[in-house]
Amino acid sequence: MDQADIRAQLTALIQQPDKHQLRGLIAHMHIADLADALAAFSPYQAAQLLSLLSLHDHAEAFSFMLEERQAAIASVMSRNDLAALFSEMESDERADLYNRLSEEQRHAVLPGLAQAEREDVRRLASYPEKTAGALMTSDYATLRGHWTVHKALLRIRLEAPDKETIYQVYVVDKDRTLQGTLSLKQLILAKPDAIIADLMHADVVSVAVNEDQEKVAEVVRHYDLLAVPVLDEDRQLVGIITYDDAMDAFVEEATEDAQKSASVATLGSSFKDISLTRLFTKRIGWLLLLVFGSLFSGAGIAFFEALIEQHVALVFFLPLLVGSGGNAGSQAAALMVRALATGEVQMKDWLGLLGREILVAGALGFTLAIAVAGLGWLRGGTDVAIVVAAAMVCVVMAGSLIGLCLPFILSKINMDPATASGPLVTTIVDATGVIIYLGFASYLLN
Amino acid sequence: MDQADIRAQLTALIQQPDKHQLRGLIAHMHIADLADALAAFSPYQAAQLLSLLSLHDHAEAFSFMLEERQAAIASVMSRNDLAALFSEMESDERADLYNRLSEEQRHAVLPGLAQAEREDVRRLASYPEKTAGALMTSDYATLRGHWTVHKALLRIRLEAPDKETIYQVYVVDKDRTLQGTLSLKQLILAKPDAIIADLMHADVVSVAVNEDQEKVAEVVRHYDLLAVPVLDEDRQLVGIITYDDAMDAFVEEATEDAQKSASVATLGSSFKDISLTRLFTKRIGWLLLLVFGSLFSGAGIAFFEALIEQHVALVFFLPLLVGSGGNAGSQAAALMVRALATGEVQMKDWLGLLGREILVAGALGFTLAIAVAGLGWLRGGTDVAIVVAAAMVCVVMAGSLIGLCLPFILSKINMDPATASGPLVTTIVDATGVIIYLGFASYLLN
Repeated sequence: MDQADIRAQLTALIQQPDKHQLRGLIAHMHIADLADALAAFSPYQAAQLLSLLSLHDHAEAFSFMLEERQAAIASVMSRNDLAALFSEMESDERADLYNRLSEEQRHAVLPGLAQAEREDVRRLASYPEKTAGALMTSDYATLRGHWTVHKALLRIRLEAPDKETIYQVYVVDKDRTLQGTLSLKQLILAKPDAIIADLMHADVVSVAVNEDQEKVAEVVRHYDLLAVPVLDEDRQLVGIITYDDAMDAFVEEATEDAQKSASVATLGSSFKDISLTRLFTKRIGWLLLLVFGSLFSGAGIAFFEALIEQHVALVFFLPLLVGSGGNAGSQAAALMVRALATGEVQMKDWLGLLGREILVAGALGFTLAIAVAGLGWLRGGTDVAIVVAAAMVCVVMAGSLIGLCLPFILSKINMDPATASGPLVTTIVDATGVIIYLGFASYLLN
Repeated sequence: MDQADIRAQLTALIQQPDKHQLRGLIAHMHIADLADALAAFSPYQAAQLLSLLSLHDHAEAFSFMLEERQAAIASVMSRNDLAALFSEMESDERADLYNRLSEEQRHAVLPGLAQAEREDVRRLASYPEKTAGALMTSDYATLRGHWTVHKALLRIRLEAPDKETIYQVYVVDKDRTLQGTLSLKQLILAKPDAIIADLMHADVVSVAVNEDQEKVAEVVRHYDLLAVPVLDEDRQLVGIITYDDAMDAFVEEATEDAQKSASVATLGSSFKDISLTRLFTKRIGWLLLLVFGSLFSGAGIAFFEALIEQHVALVFFLPLLVGSGGNAGSQAAALMVRALATGEVQMKDWLGLLGREILVAGALGFTLAIAVAGLGWLRGGTDVAIVVAAAMVCVVMAGSLIGLCLPFILSKINMDPATASGPLVTTIVDATGVIIYLGFASYLLN
């Protein structure tokens, strides 16, 4: 059954007074699919549908929705229903929703929670967005080093219903300092009277609470972790980040980078649903900056106006030359930005990569020069052929090196290297290309 | 300790006859870090270092290396060592390595395996790259529906050492048709005499064995799965894909898309380590195609040569106008490609998005037109101001619509929408922009 069918059926059934069939339909849907289907309904209708679910499923359905959508539905729910839902949600999801609630709604939901939970919500909600702290959950299982495996398993079984994962557990001392970690698989395979401290891995991979989410996701992926523990400045365990949240962070960062690579400011919401005015504001900033950037190309052309009037055939090759420089530069920038984002390349690799790029760009420029030299000869004779070929080699090399270096330079001045987008590189290379090409022409033809 | 320190220490210790200190250093390293550090050593030295590890750790270290690196090290290992390692590796990793071994090495490793394992290797190795079949493992735990929880847990404990995950288990009938799934957490929390069939989720999210890895990764992420079962045409369970392999597939696909978005053919290996000739060949193809594409811009300019000779001031605005069109087009293409890749937008959304884009692009073009009209007036009077402003609106709108539609068109003709790269869009929009701008100018100024 595809999304459109599901929506049509839900729409038909929601209007019937007897909710029996509706319950039947929902019972066989994956909660993630139900959450998707609900996106087509008003917050009020969605809240109605969700109220047919158990509290647990309702909380899970929320976890599959965008935060702004959760907040919209929460705003039409009764205070009691919202409070009940809130106490059922996982700690990380709950804190994110809390950050989107109105002052009044916050007052409605907090009294429904135990004192410790209230503090947990406030604490988790206080970390800046896109950091480990904002991503982490406090629903994890901890053990003590002197326990036996038997005791640990009993404890885990007892706590399991409230934990986001019990497959990776953490050993802490009485100050919550992280001592080690072990997996449920290890515990299951161990002898019941074995001591936890003897079994655990003491060299634990962890992240700091203020770490950027992109780094966190990379750590989870690099070490194939089910969850990574989050430590504060005193190395006390304050939360864990599970693989599914790391994967979401990955996709979010890749989307951001893809948008930056085309000079779009981070949308921050779905491309399909974003309002037209927001889409406009996310795009116009860079376009305006770049239009003034391309004035340098215009100025370069204006400087050589007399030359152009004399040899108007030169203009024919302008798009071809500056275009090739921009394309080679976009390639180099994209390769570099991505390699920096995946951690494959570090700042210190810069010089080695520059050397490689000079060789490769030289070869690329030379090949393209051969490809267009004949054309230059046809349109303007040997002189123009030489100008076009020589300019091609130089423009492609200049473009490539600008594309390669820009991400490093941005990174050095604490900007996201992904800002070294295709359009930015193209605009810079355009101006450089105009000057190189017309400079050559002016030297050789006059 | 950072990577450089680790490498320096390993280099120093590997030359000492006494391996005691070396073992000590390795024992405290995460296997993933050791695998990284080994990248700096020759295959022979790496094999030497790896031989100090237990067979299990050796196999795990391999799982953190690129496949070509694994194959290089395998090629210097003795037949016996390789056979032993091979039987220890996880089934999916093993099949990938098998595909990279020489005929001779294959004959060396197969006899070390049991008959069933040999067939497993051949079967897993037979699936095309980047499909679910190539990504899946056969090391998963299955249960039967009529078993009790007690029996199931005993069985899982027995099989756990050989399984890639035991946290999600699969219920099959005697033909291996998938009946349902349940988590280890559910099993642990259930009563020992409960029946598996009563506990399991029967509506299982699964993927087909020939499904593209990008889709598989999206399914794992969308449903927050620890692993997704893979079914053949008869709905028999043939493997599972775990979250960590899905995450790797995600990153691989995002890297590919980032490279395609800049008109680079898929590198297929690390940007840092790829050979210069391969890097050249991955880049030159598109550059050559695009240079011939930009001949259309050149031809457009040549067509209006007489006009340019009369009003050489027009050339000043050329980079600015075609640049803005290309930039707006790159934005639209990148937004669309990414939204298609994450499944946020489907083909059927095309018309609605086109309508939105016309409005947004109109507003963008109008804003940019205002920004440059004054400049046109300064350089060429009212006539030029009108030409430049009108051309800007049209070029930006044309660029945006080309950028938006190209991914859909490519997708329709079964090409990857990500091929609608910035450079490709820019080249097409350049030619369009030249014709629009000079066409306007020729109409209004003559």
